[in-house]
Amino acid sequence: MLTVNQYREVFVEYLKKFPINREPSNLYDPVSYILTLKGKRLRPILTLMATDIFSNSYKAGLDAALAVEVFHNFSLVHDDIMDSAELRRGNKTVHKKWNVSTGILSGDVMLIQAYQLFENYEGEVFVDLAKLFSKTAIEVCEGQQYDVDFETRDNVKTSDYLKMITYKTAVLLGASMKMGAIIARASKEDQNKIYDFGKYLGIAFQLQDDYLDAFGDETKFGKKIGGDILENKKTYLYLKAIEFLSEDKKNQLIGLYANNNSSEEKIKTTKALFKESGSVDYTVKEIKKYTNSAFEILESLNISAEKKKLLYEFGNSLMDRKI
Amino acid sequence: MLTVNQYREVFVEYLKKFPINREPSNLYDPVSYILTLKGKRLRPILTLMATDIFSNSYKAGLDAALAVEVFHNFSLVHDDIMDSAELRRGNKTVHKKWNVSTGILSGDVMLIQAYQLFENYEGEVFVDLAKLFSKTAIEVCEGQQYDVDFETRDNVKTSDYLKMITYKTAVLLGASMKMGAIIARASKEDQNKIYDFGKYLGIAFQLQDDYLDAFGDETKFGKKIGGDILENKKTYLYLKAIEFLSEDKKNQLIGLYANNNSSEEKIKTTKALFKESGSVDYTVKEIKKYTNSAFEILESLNISAEKKKLLYEFGNSLMDRKI
Repeated sequence: MLTVNQYREVFVEYLKKFPINREPSNLYDPVSYILTLKGKRLRPILTLMATDIFSNSYKAGLDAALAVEVFHNFSLVHDDIMDSAELRRGNKTVHKKWNVSTGILSGDVMLIQAYQLFENYEGEVFVDLAKLFSKTAIEVCEGQQYDVDFETRDNVKTSDYLKMITYKTAVLLGASMKMGAIIARASKEDQNKIYDFGKYLGIAFQLQDDYLDAFGDETKFGKKIGGDILENKKTYLYLKAIEFLSEDKKNQLIGLYANNNSSEEKIKTTKALFKESGSVDYTVKEIKKYTNSAFEILESLNISAEKKKLLYEFGNSLMDRKI
Repeated sequence: MLTVNQYREVFVEYLKKFPINREPSNLYDPVSYILTLKGKRLRPILTLMATDIFSNSYKAGLDAALAVEVFHNFSLVHDDIMDSAELRRGNKTVHKKWNVSTGILSGDVMLIQAYQLFENYEGEVFVDLAKLFSKTAIEVCEGQQYDVDFETRDNVKTSDYLKMITYKTAVLLGASMKMGAIIARASKEDQNKIYDFGKYLGIAFQLQDDYLDAFGDETKFGKKIGGDILENKKTYLYLKAIEFLSEDKKNQLIGLYANNNSSEEKIKTTKALFKESGSVDYTVKEIKKYTNSAFEILESLNISAEKKKLLYEFGNSLMDRKI
């Protein structure tokens, strides 16, 4: 087993071999551009790690790792168009550096390239990877649609929200790990368990993201605190507060979210309502619940205690934002 | 064997079973909308016909036929955004009826659904279909990019143009037929031959489209004659004329294409230059050449004379615009 940083280095090295200097250059240059922007490479690391855990070598996982990273970047390019985002990882988004048409078409080609990468696996493994990938990719699209829909809906429940983050983010983390298990030809049982491990960790991670956006340490979190509040984002904290607050206070919170003023005062009052409602305590408990669910599944995996410990440490460092 | 109209009816009936009343409705309603607009259904007919020819039943080809039609509609939805098209088959385009984000995301989900439809085929057939599909889909994207690039390039050669129409249109016709051969487990040789048959017919069809747009019979062609000329489209007729004309006349043609006036006079003068240059005769010869190439391949296929005759008649009726 390697360290997380070592998996990342191995992956970034392998990424260089991906043939992206192809014609027509207006189609492939944006692919090259987005793939070489500095990123955490979390998903391919998960694939390499899972391959290593179940087969004692990460190497067979490299093409699947590349596929999940290429797919993830496809979704970033298309989502950035939908969100009218100007920046991605501190650089211009593809549709800003080129144009919307280029963003659409380069994204399309990346989605297809992801499928092509599975062709490096034989028969049964190819079939299993492609099926899992299609199922996951459909869910990611559905999650993105729910996210878009929520912006204009005023009846979103926390259960809807959990479904949205599960589809938009968590299933791809689960699938990234399951691909490693498929390639290593682990048992179906272990394949499904490592999927759930990744999925639950993904849900916990996303809920924590909501929490840290309002209550995190700015220097550690890396983003300005209160950004979600200023954007009136219906996060888990917000939705639970709406659920828990008295009619009066609930209307106060809805009122705060109905206007677009960007004041520190708005952040402060909203955070006070989040706390007072019990939403913050509840969210922290939920984060622990999903993290613990992931770790419980881990215990039942048919792998050595040493490997379980590594996955456990990985999970903790992910939740501590050290990765 | 059925008639072309019967294959179409069978396909349209099967299309109704495609589960598109799914949640989130903002994602799947546009899929349902675009798929149920009246269309020629040429690609799925090709798949059903090829399956029937090589296995004496079209039925096993239905899901692949659906996959190629879903893919074709994905490309229409995304292309319509890139072309800022308002209408598709006489109805609003998806991004006009909904919005650009919906067009992007619904298109994405269709591309993935196309792959999922191959899951109805077992092991080896699934692998062969998915590989052929990925290769074809990449080429379609590249063809679309070349088409976009040509608009602003002034050094496009007819060889570039032939590559563009081959990728953008013809390979999908070839692949639609090859899928039928794969499903019917025809020999690799016959698989490749039926692919080339479809591809050459596709090139001939596209070149004829260019010809008819300028010299066709308006009532028969179904579009206003001279549309390509008014849009300054660098069609095969234009590019060959540029190649053949003397410096003076060539500059006259370039001049005509440099301005956006929409006069009958422009159409008339351009058509005269097309004729005078020898481009029209050359194009008509090329159309015959590609059609004959398709028919020569047909002769060498390992199928009955009766089936060859049916494919021959199909090819002719396609070129006569009776389909």
